[in-house]
Amino acid sequence: MNYTIQNALIPVSDGYEKTDVQIVDGKIAAIAPALEVIGTAIDGRDRLLLPGFVNAHTHSSEMWQRGGIAPLPLELWIAELYDFPPIEPEQVYLSALGTAVETLLSGGTTVVDHLVLIPGRELETIAATVRAYREIGIRAFVGPLLQDESLPASIPSGATPREYTPYLRETEASLELMQEAVSQFHRPEDGIEILAAPTGMQLCSDALFEGVIELSDRHQLARHTHLLETKAQQILAQEKYGCSAVTHLKHLGFLGARTSLAHCVWLDDADTQLLAETRSTVVHNPLSNLRLGSGIAPILKYLQAGVNVAFGCDGSASNDSQDLLEAIKIGTILHNVTDFDYQNWITPRQAVQLASQGGATGLGLADQFGSLKVGKQADLVLYDLKNLSLLPRTDPIGLLVLGRPTQVVESAWVKGKQIVADGRVIAIDLEDLKKNLFECSQWNCDRPSKTVQQVESHYRSVLNLPPL
Amino acid sequence: MNYTIQNALIPVSDGYEKTDVQIVDGKIAAIAPALEVIGTAIDGRDRLLLPGFVNAHTHSSEMWQRGGIAPLPLELWIAELYDFPPIEPEQVYLSALGTAVETLLSGGTTVVDHLVLIPGRELETIAATVRAYREIGIRAFVGPLLQDESLPASIPSGATPREYTPYLRETEASLELMQEAVSQFHRPEDGIEILAAPTGMQLCSDALFEGVIELSDRHQLARHTHLLETKAQQILAQEKYGCSAVTHLKHLGFLGARTSLAHCVWLDDADTQLLAETRSTVVHNPLSNLRLGSGIAPILKYLQAGVNVAFGCDGSASNDSQDLLEAIKIGTILHNVTDFDYQNWITPRQAVQLASQGGATGLGLADQFGSLKVGKQADLVLYDLKNLSLLPRTDPIGLLVLGRPTQVVESAWVKGKQIVADGRVIAIDLEDLKKNLFECSQWNCDRPSKTVQQVESHYRSVLNLPPL
Repeated sequence: MNYTIQNALIPVSDGYEKTDVQIVDGKIAAIAPALEVIGTAIDGRDRLLLPGFVNAHTHSSEMWQRGGIAPLPLELWIAELYDFPPIEPEQVYLSALGTAVETLLSGGTTVVDHLVLIPGRELETIAATVRAYREIGIRAFVGPLLQDESLPASIPSGATPREYTPYLRETEASLELMQEAVSQFHRPEDGIEILAAPTGMQLCSDALFEGVIELSDRHQLARHTHLLETKAQQILAQEKYGCSAVTHLKHLGFLGARTSLAHCVWLDDADTQLLAETRSTVVHNPLSNLRLGSGIAPILKYLQAGVNVAFGCDGSASNDSQDLLEAIKIGTILHNVTDFDYQNWITPRQAVQLASQGGATGLGLADQFGSLKVGKQADLVLYDLKNLSLLPRTDPIGLLVLGRPTQVVESAWVKGKQIVADGRVIAIDLEDLKKNLFECSQWNCDRPSKTVQQVESHYRSVLNLPPL
Repeated sequence: MNYTIQNALIPVSDGYEKTDVQIVDGKIAAIAPALEVIGTAIDGRDRLLLPGFVNAHTHSSEMWQRGGIAPLPLELWIAELYDFPPIEPEQVYLSALGTAVETLLSGGTTVVDHLVLIPGRELETIAATVRAYREIGIRAFVGPLLQDESLPASIPSGATPREYTPYLRETEASLELMQEAVSQFHRPEDGIEILAAPTGMQLCSDALFEGVIELSDRHQLARHTHLLETKAQQILAQEKYGCSAVTHLKHLGFLGARTSLAHCVWLDDADTQLLAETRSTVVHNPLSNLRLGSGIAPILKYLQAGVNVAFGCDGSASNDSQDLLEAIKIGTILHNVTDFDYQNWITPRQAVQLASQGGATGLGLADQFGSLKVGKQADLVLYDLKNLSLLPRTDPIGLLVLGRPTQVVESAWVKGKQIVADGRVIAIDLEDLKKNLFECSQWNCDRPSKTVQQVESHYRSVLNLPPL
């Protein structure tokens, strides 16, 4: 189906322009005032048209635990998270729907889902997630979360090396699973891709990384992993490799122009240089990094070094939402306290570019979507500038990025197909989704985690915190 | 009018309880399950009832410039702000309405408006603001923003002392204005109070502070001011007083149990002790402090020292919204990166208490409102726990504080009067407000500020930033 958006505001180099945009056969066919109407005419008056943003790192099924985990650092928070996982693919389907809806209604048209797999039902988990994204029509990159070491291995040993129980799935089995996931679900032409996405150096052997790299080369998969989210991981990398985790990933061959790295909080200048040289992308998850006390990622330094940056919400249990505009706002203003020179601060326009083009670049697909240019696939969002949260009228992108826009997404298109209209995600019944989420859950604020109790005193000792 | 809220969830020490709450003659008359229905019955099922929050520091008329000012530090940002102020009391009326609506729909029932006055029309400005708050029914503390030094005086002199043009209003005239504002508008019994609120040490003489203190004693006014928001102000205090600004305010007699201090980013341990000893309140404006690059206020240290803390949005041009839940969320999780020991981190329940009781305490009125207790005035908010942003069900307060709740406020009461019902502010026509805000403004992103150009190179030199 074709569309002609009329009289929308779009950003141009010296301000804004009121213009028409034709969407023909899934692509942007023309951008100019007073174009011939092709297909359905869409009223763009008093509306801002931008390329859709990329929610460049999340874990959809964490939605089941959002709001529920106490303030804890990553290593303890994840222990509680994994004590209470969703156990039915149907739940994973619902949380993928919820993640897609919140992403779409905050300006995202692409989601990168680093997906927690239900043990023994891994392919069903992926199938449920892909089904949700296909139904809604959001562009999705699903990276089965692969590891071959068990959770306690992610905490540095310190002075007392420990033995861990082996992880429930062996390296080779994980690689076979990935191969099967690619065969069954990797459909770039439909906007659904499988990502080569080991959990991170803290839970993966070199053999797993190497196997995944081989698969990603064979099937042209984008690569994704967690990288140096916490100080504990920085210590662990030195224990494990005797060098920085970035240096080690470089040696393994994991970095590159289609590799995106979530968090990147604890990198030094040499690490930053390696990211720039390999054209790797940093995915900034500011809210999660604050919530878990991981730290402030040195994003201004990355930008100055020429590293590509994108924004992610991270999973809903460490954020605890999938509002991409909130992640973009905080990911923009947070860094103003890290550099007294305001000339280095991220501007709202730059933030919008990182959220769209930066995200597409991290997936190796900036030539296909992520910008408002003729010939690009039409992943577009139309914002209602008459919403109270975007009034009074000043600079539309300033309002969108620095304000707290709510219910401002009027329409959204992915690959030219309209998937949001009148502020509603077309394919789903929101009341049904809410009812299902409500019925599958309970209010609860007292839920002691066995694993936290097991690892907490060791964690405190390795991080030099006073004993409990 | 009386109300009985039935079957609402309220927080109790070991979790949540489903209960009824009677509101009689403006006060909470009873809290217990299965109470007799007095007045109108309100269905509280699947809803969370909390005391209303206090938006403990804002400047309502900044709404006209939200989204419009580039990323700049306070001293340059304010130069641009004051180059383009609203000039009609009718505009100030509209922005006060907008501020009240956004505060109410994000859980606030009280607003502290440090109000920028239109020169020559000061009392009209206050009248317009008070009219807006009265119409809506929100509890309001309006502090006419008083200064007797001109804007360039707020930047440290450094090595080259400068001469400034005198401020447009002399000290004595400001004090007379305050006296008149108290006579005309200070009506505590109606929930409208005038605050004794000099702008801050950076723009006020000792004579102005002393005159305001005298007025606040005579009329039992709460006191409010900006305090050490930026590093530049810390330097200025040493230039001006030869001691910390906190020590100086203590000597002047400004601190105390009814004094709230906005920002408090650049205080040292001795300053913190003075705040604790004098029972003064810190108003934390985390979003504004990030947006302007002011820094991260050491809130965990304040709490550990026993200092009372409240949350504010700050004016909409430095935030750029009045979403109190967003300020509470970021003001809670931001500090996790300042202390590795998660045992010191603010919990969602503690955040709710600071936002309600902490706010009332800062106004010297915690005995009257700000908590869910029999005998307190009924400033209450009922949240819809079936909203998508609060699903699936986990810990309701965790979802509210750590999530990104939108459109979750179903009802709100101030002094027992219902002012929000079905998610709508009862007294106003939202479409009218939006239309007025739209028509009084223009999209614009190119608006050079003369004053910024005048002061920028001096600012950069005093802050040791490289020349432009």
